[in-house]
Amino acid sequence: MKDFVNKYKSELVNNVLPFWERHSIDQEQGGFFTCLERDGSVFDTDKFMWLQGRQIWTMATMYDKLEAKDQWKKIAEHGARFILDNGRDVNGDWYFSLDRSGRPLVQPYNIFSDCFATMGLGALYKITGTDEYGQVALHTFNRILERQQHPKGVYSKLIPGTRDLKGFSLPMILSNLSLELEHIVGTPTVDGLIDQVIYEVMEVFYQPESGLIMESVHLDGSFSDSFDGRLVNPGHIIEAMWFMMDLADRRGDVNLMNKCITIALRALEFGWDEQYGGIFYFKDILNRPPQQLEWDQKLWWVHLEALVCMAKGYQYTGNESCKLWFEKLDAYAFEKFADPEYGEWFGYLNRLGQPLLTLKGGKWKGCFHVPRALFKVYESLQSVYKLHVAT
Amino acid sequence: MKDFVNKYKSELVNNVLPFWERHSIDQEQGGFFTCLERDGSVFDTDKFMWLQGRQIWTMATMYDKLEAKDQWKKIAEHGARFILDNGRDVNGDWYFSLDRSGRPLVQPYNIFSDCFATMGLGALYKITGTDEYGQVALHTFNRILERQQHPKGVYSKLIPGTRDLKGFSLPMILSNLSLELEHIVGTPTVDGLIDQVIYEVMEVFYQPESGLIMESVHLDGSFSDSFDGRLVNPGHIIEAMWFMMDLADRRGDVNLMNKCITIALRALEFGWDEQYGGIFYFKDILNRPPQQLEWDQKLWWVHLEALVCMAKGYQYTGNESCKLWFEKLDAYAFEKFADPEYGEWFGYLNRLGQPLLTLKGGKWKGCFHVPRALFKVYESLQSVYKLHVAT
Repeated sequence: MKDFVNKYKSELVNNVLPFWERHSIDQEQGGFFTCLERDGSVFDTDKFMWLQGRQIWTMATMYDKLEAKDQWKKIAEHGARFILDNGRDVNGDWYFSLDRSGRPLVQPYNIFSDCFATMGLGALYKITGTDEYGQVALHTFNRILERQQHPKGVYSKLIPGTRDLKGFSLPMILSNLSLELEHIVGTPTVDGLIDQVIYEVMEVFYQPESGLIMESVHLDGSFSDSFDGRLVNPGHIIEAMWFMMDLADRRGDVNLMNKCITIALRALEFGWDEQYGGIFYFKDILNRPPQQLEWDQKLWWVHLEALVCMAKGYQYTGNESCKLWFEKLDAYAFEKFADPEYGEWFGYLNRLGQPLLTLKGGKWKGCFHVPRALFKVYESLQSVYKLHVAT
Repeated sequence: MKDFVNKYKSELVNNVLPFWERHSIDQEQGGFFTCLERDGSVFDTDKFMWLQGRQIWTMATMYDKLEAKDQWKKIAEHGARFILDNGRDVNGDWYFSLDRSGRPLVQPYNIFSDCFATMGLGALYKITGTDEYGQVALHTFNRILERQQHPKGVYSKLIPGTRDLKGFSLPMILSNLSLELEHIVGTPTVDGLIDQVIYEVMEVFYQPESGLIMESVHLDGSFSDSFDGRLVNPGHIIEAMWFMMDLADRRGDVNLMNKCITIALRALEFGWDEQYGGIFYFKDILNRPPQQLEWDQKLWWVHLEALVCMAKGYQYTGNESCKLWFEKLDAYAFEKFADPEYGEWFGYLNRLGQPLLTLKGGKWKGCFHVPRALFKVYESLQSVYKLHVAT
């Protein structure tokens, strides 16, 4: 696994970060362009709050953990200025999207924009100490906790009482977000949240019969035989498992660590396309037709999160299956997603592994999963290598 | 074209209608199952109001126009009972979906459920004269007109004033719906609506530079360079053009008829996949990446509506290009979508034309586009043949 250390760092520093530095900065009107064609040319100028917050996080985190390059801090601050000036409604909740100039387009109809805004501002506060970043990050984090029982508020179309389900996305994000914001919200808050989140993910959403984690379950944790209830998103499970592994490591909880690895390997096996390779985007747990027409596509983030998960599994436990899966995923990902010609990775492949869209960024893909995963893999494998050197 | 008359009638009567008669009736709890696997087995029991209303329409219309089979009328009445008992909220607006027993799951967050409920009840009123069907159809139609400026009501996530767009779907549906309900709403109402709808579709949404009709335009009809504004749905255009041809025929408006045919042929040429055949689901007018991941898929309704459109173009004008396109579409559709083994047609093919999902019905596909189109093609070509015989 030693050879991968330099490969991942080089891909990050030479092929990925420069793409965003070069093409995503809107020097005229602030914030980041994320709708970028294969070569980096801008094909749409709307500003999506998920991706603005995520790019702030990426640049600030690279500055903090990889190298204190002034350029990365400046880019993060450039993004923060734009979202602080334009991104919130009167309650301080974060819009879903703005137009190029910062005028709001889509309401704060969920709390994911808020999650990524606070994650970005929190990371930037860490490297600058600027009060405004820390204060808005804290306020937003508290609003997320207030809104978490009804994240969609008045925009929810579901009628309460007929089939009440709860979603896996929120506890999953909170598990990672609380760690990212520990320097702002404090360790006691984080520890309290972690207890709750580990229970939700590993007990409530986890279904022992299948060995998988469902996207939605009844309020009591039982299986719902409905489109939403049958849905499995393998990439989501695998991403959550590395969040959980970090928590297991924090606590020195070997049982939790082993359960994470077992579930992650099960999700990989369940999600892998034996015919064409790659991990399916969605599957129905009972093998019925899913409603998502994109179910058989191969998405960048799924494969990158799987690489992180297997690298961490190997780092934390030395598990041999994690190593083998890492090598298999690495071969697939660098062959199909990477683009040495223009930098960054393709985002959307068809089932056969050919680009379905040639974009490098869009409404949902920005400067986040690729650099974060390359960095996390690098960081994990480097720590293994250091250990080996030390012994 | 003469040979197609019997082909389409036979497909309708022998391969399609029996599939729904056999598999879709919920004898225990009322209404229709629409989530049916390839062989007709039920894979989900939710009741989607679009599809309940549409199946009522199909069965009542087949009774009215194809053959007065008591079974078809009974199926339509079976569906009507279920939606009348369970389908509406306190305002008389139609839910999006119910569970199997009829308890509401998803709110009336738009007015399309209402469009198909009134269309179904209106057709059933025509063949039964039962007051309840006519009264509810009329009430619903009036509510649609009341709600049409804000069809999503409180569920709209868009912030007014930043980028106000209007959608093509509503005038398009109203153009067909008003004709379907003429026996209930009266000819003066229909004529007034038609004026407005023809203007909207053929002048406002139609863009002379491209020769195409956009899904969304600014309130003044101008082009919006945004994801929504750049979106072209070729199947939608082509379906609208046969609605418009029927209006042109009603008015004896030769200019309108010719413009419809020109636009339909342009949309076919724009939407056709030269590499693998079939019509793309979505394209960006400026050839930028669309946000819809399903953009390259081949959907049943697109191809069926195109068959109807070309058959009507040929029926009304004898246009030779319509004939050639009809033959090309017929060859593709019967090779890829039809399923002589189990009846009904596949709904969702990948770009290569292979089934992406093997279902025959789901959340969006029911007993509607296939039988309606087969019947309309049969009806159109039969009238041509009769004309030829008469001359």
